[in-house]
Amino acid sequence: MIDIDRIRAETPAAARLAYLHNAGAALMPAPVVAAMKEHIDLESEIGGYAAADREASRIDSVYGSVARLLNAAPDEIALVENATVAWQMAFYALPFRKGDRILTAEAEYAANYVAFLQVAKRTGAIIDVVPSDATGELDIQALERMIDARVKLIAITWVPTNGGLVNPAAAIGRIARAHGIPYLLDACQTVGQMAVDVEAIGCDMLSATGRKFLRGPRGTGFLYVRRALLQQLEPPMIDHFAAPWVSRDTYQLRDDARRFENWENNYAARLGLGAAVDYALAIGLGPIEQRCRLLADRLRSGLASIRGITVRDLGRTPGAIVSFTVEGHEADAIVRSAAEAGITIGASDPASTRIDSEIRALPPLVRASPHYYNTEAEIDRLIDHLAGLTPR
Amino acid sequence: MIDIDRIRAETPAAARLAYLHNAGAALMPAPVVAAMKEHIDLESEIGGYAAADREASRIDSVYGSVARLLNAAPDEIALVENATVAWQMAFYALPFRKGDRILTAEAEYAANYVAFLQVAKRTGAIIDVVPSDATGELDIQALERMIDARVKLIAITWVPTNGGLVNPAAAIGRIARAHGIPYLLDACQTVGQMAVDVEAIGCDMLSATGRKFLRGPRGTGFLYVRRALLQQLEPPMIDHFAAPWVSRDTYQLRDDARRFENWENNYAARLGLGAAVDYALAIGLGPIEQRCRLLADRLRSGLASIRGITVRDLGRTPGAIVSFTVEGHEADAIVRSAAEAGITIGASDPASTRIDSEIRALPPLVRASPHYYNTEAEIDRLIDHLAGLTPR
Repeated sequence: MIDIDRIRAETPAAARLAYLHNAGAALMPAPVVAAMKEHIDLESEIGGYAAADREASRIDSVYGSVARLLNAAPDEIALVENATVAWQMAFYALPFRKGDRILTAEAEYAANYVAFLQVAKRTGAIIDVVPSDATGELDIQALERMIDARVKLIAITWVPTNGGLVNPAAAIGRIARAHGIPYLLDACQTVGQMAVDVEAIGCDMLSATGRKFLRGPRGTGFLYVRRALLQQLEPPMIDHFAAPWVSRDTYQLRDDARRFENWENNYAARLGLGAAVDYALAIGLGPIEQRCRLLADRLRSGLASIRGITVRDLGRTPGAIVSFTVEGHEADAIVRSAAEAGITIGASDPASTRIDSEIRALPPLVRASPHYYNTEAEIDRLIDHLAGLTPR
Repeated sequence: MIDIDRIRAETPAAARLAYLHNAGAALMPAPVVAAMKEHIDLESEIGGYAAADREASRIDSVYGSVARLLNAAPDEIALVENATVAWQMAFYALPFRKGDRILTAEAEYAANYVAFLQVAKRTGAIIDVVPSDATGELDIQALERMIDARVKLIAITWVPTNGGLVNPAAAIGRIARAHGIPYLLDACQTVGQMAVDVEAIGCDMLSATGRKFLRGPRGTGFLYVRRALLQQLEPPMIDHFAAPWVSRDTYQLRDDARRFENWENNYAARLGLGAAVDYALAIGLGPIEQRCRLLADRLRSGLASIRGITVRDLGRTPGAIVSFTVEGHEADAIVRSAAEAGITIGASDPASTRIDSEIRALPPLVRASPHYYNTEAEIDRLIDHLAGLTPR
């Protein structure tokens, strides 16, 4: 059982705000805030280098924490500035030639898709979008049929930004493994919301952020790269941390995933990330996922019963992102009216997931994303608020 | 005149420590620490997105502050994670073909040199090191003689990490402009220590960090790209912030230097950077440079008078980095012994500047780097401490 009272006491803003914007940036728990501020204080007391030296073992333990979160090894983890940089360092490290195929999904995130387009333009690689099945999840049979020798990457967003869809990451992994195709999984909206096990999924690379369901600081992210693939990948850009300058004309890439990092970091943010991961692990990702689904399902069924509201979520077992439209109201206006009522939610623009948005002719969506620290009463407040905006 | 007393009161650690490690990471003044901690508090009170929205105009003004620091325009500035990322985003954006030449200097920083090596391996470009003149500065006549049609980049570290050398950035700029060659200047150790004027220098791209002489947070940096060059450079990696996804098969790069950024950032650190730049501008880079030189010169002449100490700085008018060796003592041992005496200094490893280190057969160097907030008494404390370690 999650001790909601304790957790809410460690999330002071929860007493004032119904904060349902965890797919944007969650509220940080007190230990995350303290970890950052204490390190900033230490830096101002003894200087930035001495502070990093003094806290070296805690800073190093962040790799172990992230590895535990993913069921990976610490040497398979790179800590970077954000999920996009994590994803880019893996994606742009892959070699593509003319005619090579990249398979992705309909609701792929804009950040990734423009990178596909850039690499396609540079190399002549081809982007092929795997269709969704009737439930809206990536169609596993279609994926299987699309595989051929020219497929050099399967790159999928596990939980897209624009709704409750949870793509079948492990089923995709089985196909990728069976055909020996590298599999890059964007887990930006997944980590902290549900259990993630890179062995069970079978992904080769996984990127994620700190600020969303992990409740970590802004400007933090991490990359997992499977050890077997790691040493075949030369990062797209290097410095002397990633690749020490060993003789005048030679650099030597690090053996571990830190080859995707560079020397200088914001250690306060990194310690905050570590505190956030430890906080989630202490609660347990199983209970967290269960409670996230409970609250999201409560919200979905509440919204479904309101005339004029259309829930837009896809998939067999949607997660903690609840997307919807309200007849006669723009998404931004809904977000503002909720804010005025002390309820924090967000919106998702069609351009964030252009292909899915075009296929489904989606307008901007309202996006509400509860987390384990929310209460049933907060969910009901949002439902009541929205019911008050629509005709009876 | 710099009001040293006020500034030291705003740098609380200065009362306890003789902090002479500003080329590593300087002590942050109180307004920098406050800017970061206040924003972290705001994020924990209203959430990370709402905090960025509420502080949007202050966050945006950081571009203006950095632009003023460099005599550039705000749309020529990208704010990124650190100086290395800034430099990389510019360098890796440049197209090189087999036989193209990159000209650099003897004391070029390791981070940059391994990137040269990687691009040389990928493209067949050639790295040519411009020799130094008798003073140790980059030899302007030699540079002029080395120019030919195959030179596609001049990339120089202005103030190398391993000593007082200040390369003739503006004289290099005149040659680069006369021949229409892109000029990438690494100003990591320069900003915050002396006046920087991209128009006077004539560089096309300039990279720098927040944490050194600017006294900003760790994990901050910025890139300047001249407007005329900007739109010819496609960043090596993009997301939907750098290049919005405008139709299914098309992205459109931003017009401004933020095409070298990506969407997610650590806004607390960015506000800290802005506060640091504003703090330096309020004091004035002219007075700062004057005082830095005064203190560094005092240190150099004090050290020169001690038997067994060899000052290793090069150049006609060395800056605020003072490098030296102490006969019979390893650099690290000197750093430790100073730390025990309440004096913070650092060391520079030969591998950070491998070519210069090989040419001069340098061992690890002790590196002391005063700043305007230091006192003459602190300089003398270091001199006395070192004198106590050497035979009379």
